[in-house]
Amino acid sequence: MPDFQNQALLDALQSTSNAVEKVLDPMLALPKGPEARVVEAMRHAVFAGGKRLRPFLVLASSTLFDVGKHQALRVAAAIECVHTYSLVHDDLPAMDDDDLRRGQPTVHKAFDEATAILAGDALLTLAFDILSDEKTHPDANVRVRLIAALAQAAGHAGMVGGQMIDMRAEEFDLDQNAIYRLQQMKTGALIAFSVEAGAIMGHADSRMYQHLQGYARDLGLAFQIADDILDVESTTEEAGKAIGKDAEAGKATLLGLMGLERAKKQAQILADQAIEHLKEFDEKASLLRAVAHFAINRRK
Amino acid sequence: MPDFQNQALLDALQSTSNAVEKVLDPMLALPKGPEARVVEAMRHAVFAGGKRLRPFLVLASSTLFDVGKHQALRVAAAIECVHTYSLVHDDLPAMDDDDLRRGQPTVHKAFDEATAILAGDALLTLAFDILSDEKTHPDANVRVRLIAALAQAAGHAGMVGGQMIDMRAEEFDLDQNAIYRLQQMKTGALIAFSVEAGAIMGHADSRMYQHLQGYARDLGLAFQIADDILDVESTTEEAGKAIGKDAEAGKATLLGLMGLERAKKQAQILADQAIEHLKEFDEKASLLRAVAHFAINRRK
Repeated sequence: MPDFQNQALLDALQSTSNAVEKVLDPMLALPKGPEARVVEAMRHAVFAGGKRLRPFLVLASSTLFDVGKHQALRVAAAIECVHTYSLVHDDLPAMDDDDLRRGQPTVHKAFDEATAILAGDALLTLAFDILSDEKTHPDANVRVRLIAALAQAAGHAGMVGGQMIDMRAEEFDLDQNAIYRLQQMKTGALIAFSVEAGAIMGHADSRMYQHLQGYARDLGLAFQIADDILDVESTTEEAGKAIGKDAEAGKATLLGLMGLERAKKQAQILADQAIEHLKEFDEKASLLRAVAHFAINRRK
Repeated sequence: MPDFQNQALLDALQSTSNAVEKVLDPMLALPKGPEARVVEAMRHAVFAGGKRLRPFLVLASSTLFDVGKHQALRVAAAIECVHTYSLVHDDLPAMDDDDLRRGQPTVHKAFDEATAILAGDALLTLAFDILSDEKTHPDANVRVRLIAALAQAAGHAGMVGGQMIDMRAEEFDLDQNAIYRLQQMKTGALIAFSVEAGAIMGHADSRMYQHLQGYARDLGLAFQIADDILDVESTTEEAGKAIGKDAEAGKATLLGLMGLERAKKQAQILADQAIEHLKEFDEKASLLRAVAHFAINRRK
């Protein structure tokens, strides 16, 4: 894929990021009491940038079904709250113990551990607050479907369960399937929900829904392998976070199991497969196709 | 209030506890993978007992509006998940650093800090999972109202915000109004939601709703003052948790501000006021009246 298209996607990601921040800003207005500190910490975490891949996926899948942009942006904001909460908690000393995230001090470094725990808790809660509001979608049935899907993607059978496995990876000798499962839970589930959100809001039929699930599954794995490769190949400055830590910590990654060359091939195959799932969609799926290319060609 | 009535309420609380645990048990079935550890930790926290005051309030308010017990129990289970998550996170070393809770080792003691953080996260998420399920209520509008109310009670403008203020109490010189506000946020909001849940499910009119809100506000404060008094007067064995820590830590409590005698009187006044709010309700409100007596006459 030529570079200028990657740049076009980066611009689109940036514009999504700006739009999502505009949605979140008034929701995180600073209160007057001493509780302002936890809101400051939430703002520190949420407004630190990041790729905003998940919000972009919500917008891209919403485009397929002509879902209103205002609605898509609110769901995107909710998902970004959940993603950000998971980063804030993962960075804690008891977990991955990271000092740097998105090029800035992590929340427990900029504030303190207690505030970071509370800020993560509040961001997770805010996500459900946003989704339950009728401004997100006029149909309560759609809102509860979004909430149910998010809760399942984020809970102990999804993201939190995956994080638990990741913390215990050294205890277990995870084979390729077990690592696929770990990634599917830890990052795949929320990425899948981001893609499905447009389908839920757009009342997609079950066939469309299945195609998108296939796309999301392959995209999530491609994205994760690319992340592992970046962890080895990039510099801390480029990535905006501590680099090489996964390999150092002996964490279970597909890259570690496959080696660099096979991992790069595998990421390419997965990205191609992801795009193949979109073949029944017309040019409205071009954003989703571009994301699949971007997932494996990005520099951070 | 004679002792035997207190005993009758204790029996009712116990029976509620059993019923709620029966609802939660299959939801926390142990998975086969390494993520089982986080579910074990969730079970450790949830099945350690506790008064189950909030679940009981859901059942008591549901009784007023003839809401089905099955539905009330599912909402009660969701609220208990949120309450338990808040305890698990509050007990962490970075927060209150408690080793004992409900007579058992706290989650980070029985497991480890990372697992405790994740178990709390997963319990909070599970609450929304439960509420979004149509088994909780056939009407999606009701489910979404419950979710919105819970998210607001638990988030940065509610429980988490109150916890943030509590962590910073020593920095500030909180007067009586500021402490009332702190309590209202930290414990009052979730207690109020427990009482409101029955009204939401039962489509109560706005006047009924306001009476219940008044009841819940006074009950929450009475309960908190009684808790502070117990913290000073009871033994660790009776309470099942570390005792005297609040006073030792110089935490902002109404008791500290008022002294023991005035605090006891204030708790009695608040309990009486709570009951006064129920005067338009018939004998169906007897459980709620009994809780108000219990709040200030309990031994733990």
